[in-house]
Amino acid sequence: MSDAQYEVTPIGTVRSPLTNQASAPKQGNEGSPDAWLEFHPGVLDALRDIQPGDQVIVLTWLDRARRDVLRTHPRDDLANPEVGVFSTRSPDRPNPIGLHLVEVLSRDDRRLQVRNLEALDGTPVIDLKPVLPGVADA
Amino acid sequence: MSDAQYEVTPIGTVRSPLTNQASAPKQGNEGSPDAWLEFHPGVLDALRDIQPGDQVIVLTWLDRARRDVLRTHPRDDLANPEVGVFSTRSPDRPNPIGLHLVEVLSRDDRRLQVRNLEALDGTPVIDLKPVLPGVADA
Repeated sequence: MSDAQYEVTPIGTVRSPLTNQASAPKQGNEGSPDAWLEFHPGVLDALRDIQPGDQVIVLTWLDRARRDVLRTHPRDDLANPEVGVFSTRSPDRPNPIGLHLVEVLSRDDRRLQVRNLEALDGTPVIDLKPVLPGVADA
Repeated sequence: MSDAQYEVTPIGTVRSPLTNQASAPKQGNEGSPDAWLEFHPGVLDALRDIQPGDQVIVLTWLDRARRDVLRTHPRDDLANPEVGVFSTRSPDRPNPIGLHLVEVLSRDDRRLQVRNLEALDGTPVIDLKPVLPGVADA
């Protein structure tokens, strides 16, 4: 590891019925409930053009993950051979950033309601990005 | 903003012929050169299953971006109306995380050569994730 470090400042928080890891699905399209993203007042200007119907990429900081894990059994199934975490979507990894493709269902002043978010209640939100049609950037 | 902050520790560094923002394309598929990702020795175990031909999502920390920008003219073109940065891929945003879909061309012990990376030389790499076929997670 290098000496340099950078500070991530949450822009908001996940509000979800998912409250513990055991009940959370492994991927958002495996039955996650709808959730709300609640934003800090200081970033609302950055959010102003997001509308219901938009597909957005939500980046989260998976604050309950382990950062010292480099290899894992995919999907926590010991029958799966161990692989390096950079080949998995495991939350346990050196920088536990979650990527979630969601659809915006509704919004009010400070909140977006989104479909299919597999993050736990209270998870910090750290960025939102558009899905750019025709651009292969994930 | 909330009081909580989290520390991102780089896992590696971009080595690229792109050395300044003015010459960098706005998206990776607009003519970026091939680049190398050079990893810190402490994370090599997490990298062990990445192979040439893999499509991977590279997360970077865009260390030369401005974090106090909430609205921007897309593509730095003043003719474009200003929009909230969460509706853009601008590097200037509260947490300047870059998302890049790349193909692995080759690897050696500590490095991956990748196609189409629009990040500047020296940019910290903070995570690698697989593109999961059939899973809509971006």
